[in-house]
Amino acid sequence: MLSADNQQESLDAEWIVGFVDGEGCFHVAINKQPKMKIGWQVLPEFRIVQHKRDIKILYKIRNTLGIGQITRNHGDRFEVRIRGLENLKKLINFFQEHNLQTTKKENFGIFCKIIDLMEQKEHLTQEGLNKIALLASSMNNRVKSKYLESSETICRTSNYDNSMKI
Amino acid sequence: MLSADNQQESLDAEWIVGFVDGEGCFHVAINKQPKMKIGWQVLPEFRIVQHKRDIKILYKIRNTLGIGQITRNHGDRFEVRIRGLENLKKLINFFQEHNLQTTKKENFGIFCKIIDLMEQKEHLTQEGLNKIALLASSMNNRVKSKYLESSETICRTSNYDNSMKI
Repeated sequence: MLSADNQQESLDAEWIVGFVDGEGCFHVAINKQPKMKIGWQVLPEFRIVQHKRDIKILYKIRNTLGIGQITRNHGDRFEVRIRGLENLKKLINFFQEHNLQTTKKENFGIFCKIIDLMEQKEHLTQEGLNKIALLASSMNNRVKSKYLESSETICRTSNYDNSMKI
Repeated sequence: MLSADNQQESLDAEWIVGFVDGEGCFHVAINKQPKMKIGWQVLPEFRIVQHKRDIKILYKIRNTLGIGQITRNHGDRFEVRIRGLENLKKLINFFQEHNLQTTKKENFGIFCKIIDLMEQKEHLTQEGLNKIALLASSMNNRVKSKYLESSETICRTSNYDNSMKI
C-alpha cells in the first residue's frame, strides 16, 4: 500500500509530457569503443537536466516513470537519465500513450527508429551503424557525430543533410 | 460550437503546467516612467519564449488559456505574453487550480502577492512601491531592479536580502 508520502511523489502523466516538451532531451551518442568489433558504441539516452534547487522534481519524475537514474550533470546541475534498451522501450511506451506536443516529437520519432534498429542488432553491422549515424545526425541541433566525421564513405557522399529531412 | 480544428488547438491543463514549470517565466519589471506621478511603472508579466519552430505551441497555449499575445521576443524567438491585471488574475486562477511542481511555484507565490498589492493600488504609493520592488527583487535570479538601485533609502538599509527570504 502506498503511504501518503509516496503518493505525493507521483506526478500527472500530462504534466511530465509538458515538462519534457520544455526540458527533456532525446539523444544518441556514437562513441569510439575499440573493444567492440565494429569499433563504435551507440549510446541512446533520455535526460532532463535541472539546477540542484529542483532536484526533487527529478526524483518525482523517476518515481512516476519507474525508471531512471539521478546523477550530477555538471556543477550545480543534476539530471534524471534513462539508458538501456529495456528502460528506453518503457519510456517510448509512455510517450506513445501520452503525446509530445512540440517539435520535440520529431526527435522522439527518430529516437524510436534508432531504438528499433538497435533491437534488430543493426548497430553491430557497418550498414546499420551508418543508418543510425545518419538518423542521429538529424536529431536536435543536427551536430555531426565523431563517427560521421571519421567515416569517409559517408562524408564523401555528403548528401545526408538532404536525405534526412524530417 | 467548437469545430474539430479548434478542439485540436486545446491542450491538457496539466501539460501546460508542466511546460510552464520548464519554460514559463513570471516577471515584474519596474521601469522609469516620468509621466507617472510616482516616477516608476510596475509591469508584471508572464511569458513563455520558444524558438520559431515551435510557434504553434504558443498559439495553442494562448487558445487554451483564452488570454495572451504572441509577439517576437528577439531574432528567431517568439513569446506568448500575458499582461494587465485582469488577464493576470485569470492566469493566477489557472495556476491556483493546477499546481506548479518545481521551485517556480515560489516565484508564482511572490508574483501573486505583487498582483494583490497592485489591485489595492499600492504601486501608486511610495511605501507600496518599495514593498513591490523588494518582492520583485527576490524573484528569479534576484537581480536588483533599476528602481532599487536608484532608491537610496532602500539601498542604505541594504538588509532586504535577509528580510525577503522565501
